[in-house]
Amino acid sequence: MTPTSSSTSPLSEFALIDRFFAHATREGEHVTLGIGDDCALLRPPAGEQLAISTDMLVEGRHFFADVDPRALGHKTLAVNLSDLAAMGARPLGFTLAIALPDSQPAWLSPFAEGLAALADRYACPLVGGDTTRGPRNLCVTIFGSVPGAQALRRDAAQPGDDIWVSGTLGDARLALGAIRGEWTLSDGDLALARRALDWPEPQVTLGLALRGVARAALDVSDGLLGDLGHILERSSMSARVNVDDVPRSALLAAQTPAIQRMCALAGGDDYQLCFCAGSAQRPRIEAIGNELGIRVTRIGTIALPDARRTRLHLHDKTGASVAADFKSFDHFQ
Amino acid sequence: MTPTSSSTSPLSEFALIDRFFAHATREGEHVTLGIGDDCALLRPPAGEQLAISTDMLVEGRHFFADVDPRALGHKTLAVNLSDLAAMGARPLGFTLAIALPDSQPAWLSPFAEGLAALADRYACPLVGGDTTRGPRNLCVTIFGSVPGAQALRRDAAQPGDDIWVSGTLGDARLALGAIRGEWTLSDGDLALARRALDWPEPQVTLGLALRGVARAALDVSDGLLGDLGHILERSSMSARVNVDDVPRSALLAAQTPAIQRMCALAGGDDYQLCFCAGSAQRPRIEAIGNELGIRVTRIGTIALPDARRTRLHLHDKTGASVAADFKSFDHFQ
Repeated sequence: MTPTSSSTSPLSEFALIDRFFAHATREGEHVTLGIGDDCALLRPPAGEQLAISTDMLVEGRHFFADVDPRALGHKTLAVNLSDLAAMGARPLGFTLAIALPDSQPAWLSPFAEGLAALADRYACPLVGGDTTRGPRNLCVTIFGSVPGAQALRRDAAQPGDDIWVSGTLGDARLALGAIRGEWTLSDGDLALARRALDWPEPQVTLGLALRGVARAALDVSDGLLGDLGHILERSSMSARVNVDDVPRSALLAAQTPAIQRMCALAGGDDYQLCFCAGSAQRPRIEAIGNELGIRVTRIGTIALPDARRTRLHLHDKTGASVAADFKSFDHFQ
Repeated sequence: MTPTSSSTSPLSEFALIDRFFAHATREGEHVTLGIGDDCALLRPPAGEQLAISTDMLVEGRHFFADVDPRALGHKTLAVNLSDLAAMGARPLGFTLAIALPDSQPAWLSPFAEGLAALADRYACPLVGGDTTRGPRNLCVTIFGSVPGAQALRRDAAQPGDDIWVSGTLGDARLALGAIRGEWTLSDGDLALARRALDWPEPQVTLGLALRGVARAALDVSDGLLGDLGHILERSSMSARVNVDDVPRSALLAAQTPAIQRMCALAGGDDYQLCFCAGSAQRPRIEAIGNELGIRVTRIGTIALPDARRTRLHLHDKTGASVAADFKSFDHFQ
């Protein structure tokens, strides 16, 4: 692409990839050609489909400039692994395109370590990339594989399906609110909440276990109610959700009811799975949860849309209606 | 990801994709699920490998802020198609992640048109994406397929191979130099050169025709000599190149010898193919060029490395040695 003049750093593009990302790169069963050619070459498992997702992270918007780079490396890959998890796909590899104001070895080294540690854990190697100079921006594209008929699509929810959520929701938003000064937390509580914000764990193993068990699924990244809304819209369904059943941590449960609801229902950055499954699957799903040590909670039921086409009907544990006026996050709203 | 507060535009993330990129999106033979789920689903041709490349384009670095957005849409996809071409891969689809300061419909509309026109031409649909707010940044990841044994890799050049170049080199760099004030061109000449800079044509059809004919290949994006150096390094070979044989347009051939050599040998942004093939393939390659209406030119020969491990030996048409002191472009040098 068009070169504009600049010359400040002794570290070349190729050396940068070699030096910092070599340990996230390897050729193997599915990667027949890695970094260093015009393209990487991947051999997907025969008969399976390729699941692809891309996410762009911008400094000041998706992460703070002073975030721990090791945590950012982890999270950059985690949010993409979470998209594979939500599809029931097995990770195959990923590309990383990165813009930095300069070559920043002191920042890149821990960033690459955080990224590589998670890549190793899910056998998901870095297969290609691009490095350039510019305002800090990270773009990961990830590839997984899934038998086509078992993919957990958003458009597959059926009337009568249970709605499930993994883990607990809202701690990341609780941390963000404290950082922003919307509310206060003790140092210990903030450190606890901040772990959820900075080190989300993608639910890859759960997604794989739910193949053939759940019908529809997605990952909760922009807030439960907004994300569930995508399933309802794509499946042309409505849902009844008991907001008091939405799982929250002991830390969040100790906050005011208003903070609890805002964080758990519309918080964002949770990276848990929300999935729909027939009621006959309840014992199987509870067994999966026990086996994996992952909390799974039923929070509501899918139904055909009513005459007024209201998608989401919220109520509390007393059965009283709750207004669905929580906004999920939209980058251009 | 972490929402930071902002609220300036009436256009939502989903509406933005629907409105501007719908015509670049379609499900078809190889795309079983497009935009709107956690992942896209692709079904690659049975028995073939998946070729993957990613490129990040930053405003002010890879393109000027005032560039025609239609041309930029074209070029954003063209540079990625060019990577598939260089691998001999057939396009299957691509993802686009985009950061913009605001939703900019007046800019996005022609950008998406330029992108979609090229996507249509190569049957390469948009299968997924991400939109966010931030300094303008475009990241395309592209997928193609190629029978593994026919992939045009950089590490496959053999002693005695001819070195070939498609089209002509240097016009994009000639335009850039005029825009930067390094030299002057008449308005008519600048418009001609600028077409090469703004509307590069990826050599996808040539790449496909060279399967089983050429051994090593890459696309000339950072300057011929630097790019050829990648083949030499990955193949552990050296090369003799006649710099006067490097093909250039009539426009470039009318410039001073110094400008000609700088632009043709180290210019960048050409997106032609440089490829190596056994000399027995000459008639076949010339026939391919004639059939496709693409100029193909032999510029040199691959050899085993000499004792001094000099990779690149340049000479002119008189046989006199030429110093190989042209630098190719590196984003972090």
